[in-house]
Amino acid sequence: MAHADLYERVRQKTPVPITERDLERVLVGLLQAESLWDLVGLCDVPLAALPPLLEELQRDGLLERRGDRVSLTPSGKQLIEAQGWAPPVESRCSRCRGRGVSLEEAPYRELLERFQEISRDRPAPRQDFDQGYVTPETTVARVALLRRRGDLDGKRLLVLGDDDLVGLAAALLGTARTITVLEVDPDLVGFIRETARRLELALEVREHDLRDPLPPDLLKAFDTFTTDPVESYDGCRLFLGRGLSGLAGIGSAGYFGLTRHEASLAKWHRLQRWVVEQGAVITDCLDRFNEYVNWPYWGEMRARRWLAVEAAPQAIWYRSTLFRLELVEPKAYPNEPFAGSFEDPELATT
Amino acid sequence: MAHADLYERVRQKTPVPITERDLERVLVGLLQAESLWDLVGLCDVPLAALPPLLEELQRDGLLERRGDRVSLTPSGKQLIEAQGWAPPVESRCSRCRGRGVSLEEAPYRELLERFQEISRDRPAPRQDFDQGYVTPETTVARVALLRRRGDLDGKRLLVLGDDDLVGLAAALLGTARTITVLEVDPDLVGFIRETARRLELALEVREHDLRDPLPPDLLKAFDTFTTDPVESYDGCRLFLGRGLSGLAGIGSAGYFGLTRHEASLAKWHRLQRWVVEQGAVITDCLDRFNEYVNWPYWGEMRARRWLAVEAAPQAIWYRSTLFRLELVEPKAYPNEPFAGSFEDPELATT
Repeated sequence: MAHADLYERVRQKTPVPITERDLERVLVGLLQAESLWDLVGLCDVPLAALPPLLEELQRDGLLERRGDRVSLTPSGKQLIEAQGWAPPVESRCSRCRGRGVSLEEAPYRELLERFQEISRDRPAPRQDFDQGYVTPETTVARVALLRRRGDLDGKRLLVLGDDDLVGLAAALLGTARTITVLEVDPDLVGFIRETARRLELALEVREHDLRDPLPPDLLKAFDTFTTDPVESYDGCRLFLGRGLSGLAGIGSAGYFGLTRHEASLAKWHRLQRWVVEQGAVITDCLDRFNEYVNWPYWGEMRARRWLAVEAAPQAIWYRSTLFRLELVEPKAYPNEPFAGSFEDPELATT
Repeated sequence: MAHADLYERVRQKTPVPITERDLERVLVGLLQAESLWDLVGLCDVPLAALPPLLEELQRDGLLERRGDRVSLTPSGKQLIEAQGWAPPVESRCSRCRGRGVSLEEAPYRELLERFQEISRDRPAPRQDFDQGYVTPETTVARVALLRRRGDLDGKRLLVLGDDDLVGLAAALLGTARTITVLEVDPDLVGFIRETARRLELALEVREHDLRDPLPPDLLKAFDTFTTDPVESYDGCRLFLGRGLSGLAGIGSAGYFGLTRHEASLAKWHRLQRWVVEQGAVITDCLDRFNEYVNWPYWGEMRARRWLAVEAAPQAIWYRSTLFRLELVEPKAYPNEPFAGSFEDPELATT
């Protein structure tokens, strides 16, 4: 392609391991995006790499930016046309938003209504705890998926960090054997505990920082865990490692989300290698399953400074891929205090 | 659970690495299944392990079988109830059959119609080539997914073995830069070539046995491959290895299917470890994406003998999970003649 050194110039400007394919993803995203938020939501490229990508595209006269508006220039469009690239024709199913899980029938339609009602007064997400919760539809779809996979009914469920309120949604359904929630935020712990008490839901919630070892009574005690990890490499291994420590053994399952916004495919690759080494197999990997409600602290995110974005996002832009793993060859999972780092140049919302 | 040695007894009778979770999957499947074919389609357990599983369940008085009909006995139901297990509530989206890909809008609705028309006279699947093709909806959904992921428009597509006719479907759409099909079956090669000629489709098809090295002009020459491997461990590595040899480099993508019928999760795990070691990351893993049309040689399958099944399956029962991988750290992929084996105790349809 023309502008042969464009990619190399971007590489010089960022520690994030992007590829030429990421450059393509931004260009193709620009065919559809009208604003920076659109682009971020469309293009599956680490947010931390977007500023240099956009700068160099502008420098080469391929992109025009006015405030938060972005568009390809005629030569940008020409370049894409010469490659034969087209905007991805969105064949995503409109009924299930591409999740493959329908909430239109019993018992999920009713569960969604009840869940929306009880979560109305939930605490707002806090940046200091890396919070940011998914839509009610996402939470209920996740419960439906756990159930379809045989990981909920009659099973012991461990929820590691629960600003998505998966524990409450599962408890409303009432088919799990036990539900245990670990959560670091005292406000959220209070909300979950009080809601469970008021509605007489079978759910235990404990205030717990996942950097501390798992309480001994929770080791090897669960059939299923679900978590939404901090996306530094160490942070991910911490959250997943705690989940693995909690699993009873062969055939136990774990669910976790991973974004393209804060994790490059190189990081995905390292993490998958680690997951496989832990004796787990990936049975599901569902692109954009998790959709996040825009959080109030968007103005304080470092990605906002990087991109110099002016206005709040109007639509959902932050999404993650949902993974399911199953243990086939359990290892000894150390249950030590966390000595790693939550910092990572790819993190964007901190 | 009661019948504590049941699982161990099954393990003694089969070389297939099943787990206690597989026993659970069969029991829960039996809550819904009315026939052997139902059960096979529902329960995600290696077919080769089903006969000893069913035998031991019968021996313990948990299962009744009359010809092809199977049902739980009262004590079988009791056992499941005591565990709190329930039949998986099928939340699968009815519009997209859980694929997340909708074919109801342009251009896919029309593509599906045209594809159904041209594939009407296709050659029947042959057991000696391990054939068995997917429904037209599956083929078109796969094309739609490639496209959504940016792996089709303007890209060079390599199809390794094509009884699913993905090459023709993609050529009908007409957005790929090039399409190259390698196929071992001369009848299928003739059909694809003749159809492409008649409809003036841009598609090259070569008669080629994947056990032979990839032709030199196809090495590192493609952006995307798709294949439906033979499911022995060696067979899978052969097909995927040929695909990887064909990929141009970082950012290139590959698609492949893997069943739960002929591959245990232990085999999945070994394969995923290998995939990750090849420098590829898994970006999608879509349960039951591929649905296969029942093939005429079902009576000759060894699984039929194992299960002593009497009647032909009436509905779709054979499905596979669709994987997408993307190269992040390409290795040197050897392009040697195949010295492995297509034989494997888990294979059921040969």
